[in-house]
Amino acid sequence: MASASIDKPNADKPDTKYLGKPRKIIDGLEKIAGRARYVADVVVPGLLHLRPVLSTVAHAKIVSIDKSEAEKVPGVVAILTAADLVTRDRTITSRSDAILAKGKVLFVGQPVVAVVAETEAAAEDAAELVAIEYEELPVNSSVEAASAEGAHVTWPEGLPKGELEVISHAEVEEKEEVETGPITNHYKTSNFNRGDVDAGFAEADAIVETTFNIASQYQGYMETHGCVVEPDALKGGLTIYTTTQAQFGVRNKVADILKLKRSNVKVTAMTVGGGFGSKYGTIEPLAATVAYTINRPVKLILQRGEDLKTTTPAPPTQIKLKLGGKKDGSITALKADIVLDAGAFAFEFGQLTGLLLGSNYKYPALDIEVIEYITNKTEMGAYRAPGAYQSTFAVESSIDDLARKLNLDPVEFRMKNLSGTDDPMANGSPWPSLNIKECLKQMSEHPKWKNQSKEEGEGIGFAVSAWPCALSPSASTCRIDGDGTVKVVVGSTDISGVSSSLVLVAAEILGISPNEVELIQGNTDVGPYAPGSGGSQVTYSVSGAVAAAAEDVKIKLLELAADQLEARVEDIELLNGAAQVKGVPSSAIKIGKLAQIAESSRSAPGPLIGEGRSSIKQNAPGSVAHMVKVKVDKDTGHVKVLDYVAIQDVGYALNPMLVEGQIHGGVVQGIGMGIFEAHVYDSFGQLQSASFMDYALPRTVDVPNIEAIQLNMPSPEGPFGARGVGEPPITAGAAAIGNAIRDAVGVRVTEMPMRPPVVWKAINEQS
Amino acid sequence: MASASIDKPNADKPDTKYLGKPRKIIDGLEKIAGRARYVADVVVPGLLHLRPVLSTVAHAKIVSIDKSEAEKVPGVVAILTAADLVTRDRTITSRSDAILAKGKVLFVGQPVVAVVAETEAAAEDAAELVAIEYEELPVNSSVEAASAEGAHVTWPEGLPKGELEVISHAEVEEKEEVETGPITNHYKTSNFNRGDVDAGFAEADAIVETTFNIASQYQGYMETHGCVVEPDALKGGLTIYTTTQAQFGVRNKVADILKLKRSNVKVTAMTVGGGFGSKYGTIEPLAATVAYTINRPVKLILQRGEDLKTTTPAPPTQIKLKLGGKKDGSITALKADIVLDAGAFAFEFGQLTGLLLGSNYKYPALDIEVIEYITNKTEMGAYRAPGAYQSTFAVESSIDDLARKLNLDPVEFRMKNLSGTDDPMANGSPWPSLNIKECLKQMSEHPKWKNQSKEEGEGIGFAVSAWPCALSPSASTCRIDGDGTVKVVVGSTDISGVSSSLVLVAAEILGISPNEVELIQGNTDVGPYAPGSGGSQVTYSVSGAVAAAAEDVKIKLLELAADQLEARVEDIELLNGAAQVKGVPSSAIKIGKLAQIAESSRSAPGPLIGEGRSSIKQNAPGSVAHMVKVKVDKDTGHVKVLDYVAIQDVGYALNPMLVEGQIHGGVVQGIGMGIFEAHVYDSFGQLQSASFMDYALPRTVDVPNIEAIQLNMPSPEGPFGARGVGEPPITAGAAAIGNAIRDAVGVRVTEMPMRPPVVWKAINEQS
Repeated sequence: MASASIDKPNADKPDTKYLGKPRKIIDGLEKIAGRARYVADVVVPGLLHLRPVLSTVAHAKIVSIDKSEAEKVPGVVAILTAADLVTRDRTITSRSDAILAKGKVLFVGQPVVAVVAETEAAAEDAAELVAIEYEELPVNSSVEAASAEGAHVTWPEGLPKGELEVISHAEVEEKEEVETGPITNHYKTSNFNRGDVDAGFAEADAIVETTFNIASQYQGYMETHGCVVEPDALKGGLTIYTTTQAQFGVRNKVADILKLKRSNVKVTAMTVGGGFGSKYGTIEPLAATVAYTINRPVKLILQRGEDLKTTTPAPPTQIKLKLGGKKDGSITALKADIVLDAGAFAFEFGQLTGLLLGSNYKYPALDIEVIEYITNKTEMGAYRAPGAYQSTFAVESSIDDLARKLNLDPVEFRMKNLSGTDDPMANGSPWPSLNIKECLKQMSEHPKWKNQSKEEGEGIGFAVSAWPCALSPSASTCRIDGDGTVKVVVGSTDISGVSSSLVLVAAEILGISPNEVELIQGNTDVGPYAPGSGGSQVTYSVSGAVAAAAEDVKIKLLELAADQLEARVEDIELLNGAAQVKGVPSSAIKIGKLAQIAESSRSAPGPLIGEGRSSIKQNAPGSVAHMVKVKVDKDTGHVKVLDYVAIQDVGYALNPMLVEGQIHGGVVQGIGMGIFEAHVYDSFGQLQSASFMDYALPRTVDVPNIEAIQLNMPSPEGPFGARGVGEPPITAGAAAIGNAIRDAVGVRVTEMPMRPPVVWKAINEQS
Repeated sequence: MASASIDKPNADKPDTKYLGKPRKIIDGLEKIAGRARYVADVVVPGLLHLRPVLSTVAHAKIVSIDKSEAEKVPGVVAILTAADLVTRDRTITSRSDAILAKGKVLFVGQPVVAVVAETEAAAEDAAELVAIEYEELPVNSSVEAASAEGAHVTWPEGLPKGELEVISHAEVEEKEEVETGPITNHYKTSNFNRGDVDAGFAEADAIVETTFNIASQYQGYMETHGCVVEPDALKGGLTIYTTTQAQFGVRNKVADILKLKRSNVKVTAMTVGGGFGSKYGTIEPLAATVAYTINRPVKLILQRGEDLKTTTPAPPTQIKLKLGGKKDGSITALKADIVLDAGAFAFEFGQLTGLLLGSNYKYPALDIEVIEYITNKTEMGAYRAPGAYQSTFAVESSIDDLARKLNLDPVEFRMKNLSGTDDPMANGSPWPSLNIKECLKQMSEHPKWKNQSKEEGEGIGFAVSAWPCALSPSASTCRIDGDGTVKVVVGSTDISGVSSSLVLVAAEILGISPNEVELIQGNTDVGPYAPGSGGSQVTYSVSGAVAAAAEDVKIKLLELAADQLEARVEDIELLNGAAQVKGVPSSAIKIGKLAQIAESSRSAPGPLIGEGRSSIKQNAPGSVAHMVKVKVDKDTGHVKVLDYVAIQDVGYALNPMLVEGQIHGGVVQGIGMGIFEAHVYDSFGQLQSASFMDYALPRTVDVPNIEAIQLNMPSPEGPFGARGVGEPPITAGAAAIGNAIRDAVGVRVTEMPMRPPVVWKAINEQS
């Protein structure tokens, strides 16, 4: 596949040896050779196996639980219900709190009973013999049902609280809104308002008004959720091995649920087989509570069907969007009514979705309302750029339609209205450094846009978007070992290859080959604090800490070298793993040798270790323009993606190869979201897509040629000008495909995924 | 038992809240509850079990090895000889190099074959079926045999090299001495000379000349050697879990033997069940080489009999000592001829033993020669204060006898001649801050010395000694967690409770309870560099690093607190886990809250983490005076220790309770050395004491009342005035007992241990 990296004209790109140069992922070999250590590989002495019994009904009272047959299975150690757990008195207020159902089940897939046995087979056999009697209650399988007059209320005694503490997905400040009035299934309403929307529509030359329906979608990671928990009764603590994006988040969540001191919970994040927003501690509380209750170590690895049912997919989202514009190319007003299906608990997505929907363009007037409803489904959660890909699908489809209605060029129309640096977001806050327009400009100059060639049934479309990117403080340590290896310790988890960029940071600063840098992911005990790997923040946050730690040890190294070489510190340079007097290669000493001196000589000031921390004041949004060419089979509605150009402002790509990997992955996942994937519940609240046979992930043959173009427009405050890159590439794909379909067959598809029946129906109803 | 702590008169003892106050050991509960994690508890996926087949003869050619019957045992995975290993081309030059014997065996207990099986039982069954045919060679079972004219030479093709790299036991600089001439069993000669010895003896009014024989002794730790090694073929590396005093030392040794990059070997030191100088990597090379060869993880835990045979006990030592003195109480000359039995390889103890022998007193003339011979026994190694307890036994016995011969008071005679600060050691180097005399002064003023009460057959004796104490640079990190816990990471291993002192260092500096400090022993990847826990150096070295790291984080904490409390940094104090404006308790903020702010706020400079390193210029010797009362049964020669006063200059006891534990342990081990323990080989080189039935450790009933008196005479350069405390309390026990026996029954016992037959023989031959 083609790829390119374009520097911002006149950008002061630093002169580097390793940083900013493509380099292979550091743990690629161990992953493809099957040697990477995942949580399923973890064993500890006396390990037992936990199998959950999940609810088979969407809403019911639990009448009785009969363990008797299950207890007869040889090897069974414990069969536990909520009443047996140390958390028995805890109120369930969120999915991860719902360790085992108490009295009622609220969704299909909710854990009801935990079976612990000496072998996984025994646990599974026994789990199948647990007999649970339910008294079924009315099921709200959709927001329509949940919001209907007289709907059965899922939380009659009070709504659960959200789960946002652990995850910081984008730069949104959440304000507490107190709900009053009778309790219904209405969870929360968020509003954004600016200007006079009615006046705006009144002065518009054209208005488009469309309702978009976006399905729930599942993160589709290769490795299901799983963990091993080892209790330490003496210290009142736990050790947890898990697959997570946020080891400190899991630590805090489990500690808080079990009322343990957070420091007494030690979390080791193993190699992660994909997270995409899902792995923030959904099942660790269950395994931890069981282990803590029986004071024995347990392992819980979800089976795929369980994972599909009990974890946190993206929320079904309905967006009614009304957009007005004038012939001069100005947008006059935006009105959006968004309804989110939160599932049985609430992740609280609404505000973020509304904010993102109303921020990419300079709307003189806007009125956005987002309502979240409780239904009888699993809690909905984050999926890579949560809220952004849904809102972009609606906005970019509508922008395209409005341009067409106003007979304006879709690029020029956007260029005139797109937000840039300091323009207000939906909530009035100014955007930090934002380059959507530059991405679009690059796209518009791309030969595939300028010289479009389309055959019958083919169409070309594009969409733009942006993702604010989060940021959090972090820290790192860096030491030089006696064999010249540089060991960098971080507390972040690597879900996207970030560690393969961090090694380049240390290598560059210390003038050594990245092969000599070892990136060590420390657990929550020894790993310096780092935020969760989500919200596209980890590179932005942690690379600065690594740089600071490397600079700290560099100073110590130079001082020692100066002493050893009898030169001044300012005359020493680091080159190829050695410190040398500038311009005097004969007067040099290997850094490994310096480390040995530092570790052994009483005339040196001590071992070479440095510490660094990072706290960035301003986030650095990532912007994209995605252009796609599709072929639509009018007879079947089947859409084939033929070609893809993904342009992204990456700020400064620390390791362009891994950034390209992020773009490729985002594009493919965006195609999946756009035309394949749907997490479907029926009217009984039964999950219809509870296997990979039913949940359609894109296959290799569905992936087109992808041209990834990295725009290097340095962020003002990020380390080396870096920006977050993980989430932006998923934001615009579905919207671009929708616009390409519109180009190909002249109809607007408003449902996502745009599967053949949907496209076929649109073609046959609209044309 | 009584205990006391005496401060140096007018010493500026710091005003502390936690430091210097007795506090319970931090991992005591988990140890007594059986929850501490030892290497035998480690499991990793696919773990296999390794059983060594040890040589049953002391010196022989290996004619053949028949694996055929052993291979039939179900579950056997591999049966390996030296020729099957990746190290097959490596020359054996030391005990740890002797992974498996090549062609010849040199001692009883040398590993010859490694059997690997799926269970330990299968490995053991198969090991018993391996048939090794030997052609026996002449055995040198003693230095007499090895040094005899025409003795069979164990290393006809060249002597092995020593093993000192890993261990830094005391402050001795080793100089390479090149041996020339024909190869014999003579390994090395070391000499110390000063003044005119002949003239010294000529002017002496009295001379004593005695030959002392000190048996080999075994370190007697509760936990045998063991390790788990997991190879990582992709990285060309290994992970080792082991029971060791020196994880970095084991790392380097294994890496060097396998020609791996040191950084690719990761060593995790588990809880150590006693080391006492033995656990520096004797069997890790065997397990690592086998694991690396078969590319499978293996566990090797030595059985007690194996451990007794194949590890490294203290060397049998013969000291011929001649001492002259004048009636005015001055010593005129010292001559010593020391012969060490090095075993089949050489640890190179001679120089250290000679140095220690000639340094405690101001000898105007001295002539010390130490010869080390190769014999057909396991390599001899370090046992707590190696060389010191042997030389002290000879010197303090002789000093006592000389005083008696000169009719001088044994205390006054010593006081006149003892070395003090800046007096020359045997090699001419000046002693750093040294307080043997102050210890002896305290003893002489002790009521039990001044008002001696003895019944028939009872005697009181004493001895003094000193241990130079080693020192090495080290580093540490310290971070403050969001729940207020302070996490200190070190790379040292805790064999003596040192971690329970280190927590007090951080607590004191940060003004929080030691209960809120967590001491984390990081493995060689994440643990900052620290020397091995030997040579009484680890507290002296690492506590300074911990203090520096705590001070580093304290600065950051104060700055953040000042910002939050809107005060000046110099107006903030840390008190009870909070930062507060001095004298304004209402204006305070918990340090955990500050850590949360640091980890989350973009207006703060980042997480609270500090780094510290320590490199001390000067070692700080520890001195002792031990007084003991014994009862000797003249009919049987049985010696019973009735009472014990142990006075020690501890510099500054960071945690006096643990220092007292060190003194108690040293006293008991000294009693064991003095009257019980002997590691005995017969003339065929067969170990006669190959079980705890035969090797006599002291039992509870053998332990007298011990009064431990800690003298706080701050070291000039150590952290808080600390000195090493681990080895000094073992140096003087045997000598004091010998002097007490002399007092009780009027005869000098020159053999150690002073078991009943030895004492009986002395009584009946000398009196």
